Amino acid sequence: MEALLAYLKQVHPLSKEAENALLEICSVETVAKNEDLQPIGHTCRNIYFIKEGLLRIYYLKEGNDITESFEVENAILARADSLFDASPSRKGIQAIEPTTVIAINSAQLFALYDQYHDIERLFRKLFEKAYVQTVNRLESLQFYTAEERYNNLVKSAAQIIQRAPLKHIASFLGITQVSLSRIRSKK
Amino acid sequence: MEALLAYLKQVHPLSKEAENALLEICSVETVAKNEDLQPIGHTCRNIYFIKEGLLRIYYLKEGNDITESFEVENAILARADSLFDASPSRKGIQAIEPTTVIAINSAQLFALYDQYHDIERLFRKLFEKAYVQTVNRLESLQFYTAEERYNNLVKSAAQIIQRAPLKHIASFLGITQVSLSRIRSKK
Repeated sequence: MEALLAYLKQVHPLSKEAENALLEICSVETVAKNEDLQPIGHTCRNIYFIKEGLLRIYYLKEGNDITESFEVENAILARADSLFDASPSRKGIQAIEPTTVIAINSAQLFALYDQYHDIERLFRKLFEKAYVQTVNRLESLQFYTAEERYNNLVKSAAQIIQRAPLKHIASFLGITQVSLSRIRSKK
Repeated sequence: MEALLAYLKQVHPLSKEAENALLEICSVETVAKNEDLQPIGHTCRNIYFIKEGLLRIYYLKEGNDITESFEVENAILARADSLFDASPSRKGIQAIEPTTVIAINSAQLFALYDQYHDIERLFRKLFEKAYVQTVNRLESLQFYTAEERYNNLVKSAAQIIQRAPLKHIASFLGITQVSLSRIRSKK
């Protein structure tokens, strides 16, 4: 749990008591390669911290499997619509590599807010960051071409290019694998 | 300010003291029809409550003016990227009708969080709602056709269809005005 605590501390410090209360509602889950951590249509009841591995958020459109994002170790992952709305998510979470996550039960977490103001503040800040990321993702679709998005991926997360299958990178960029090869060969 | 307080009360109740502190950092602004409340490239330093009128969030893509969303009275409006990131927003806010907003200064608001836990909680909940709306907007672009999005607009906000110019509704749906007329004539 140390990696989780170190990550959280960067966002907002917790008292020892709050830290212990938080750890009590955490559990470790492992997902095999190509298995779903959450299938499409599932209502998300956890916030995940990725301890080790690589996940992708994906959805189906007209039968095609589209990768929306890649999520690597030392990051928080949650499906906001599902968490705050209690509605089934149209997107699934799948492991690209064998992955270990720490799952934080959201109902229990939200209950802790009343007791520990610092936990509420920490997760307020975390969700604000996630909110900004979602706005940026929307803008990336609105403003950038596939090639620009590929370059952004190389800049911000070059390791994804090495670790994720080409088909997922291509669907993430909204192009075919052939077009992706063309972009890559230019570099 | 009564409309604002009534709106906020639905989200989370405030003590009288917190309410007064909040009102002190609010100011009323009016925007004439077709004028910008915030131009593109501006760093958003306010959260707005729309008291009266109709606004749109818009951006430019390859010289075309695209409407991202419509925002009517009795709603909160903020540019999350700009607020939490202090970065200039790629999107502007423009009045479609003469509009009156209540502006809440974000730096002053965030400072109140330390003094008034209920204000922090209220705005945490407000931003969680806004976060879910952004996720839904992204999914609406990913999953729905223009016709489905038109039908959703009629269902969720029929008055927009009456109040907003066709060109803005068409760019919101990502289609030409001719295609929009075709969809409308089917109803």
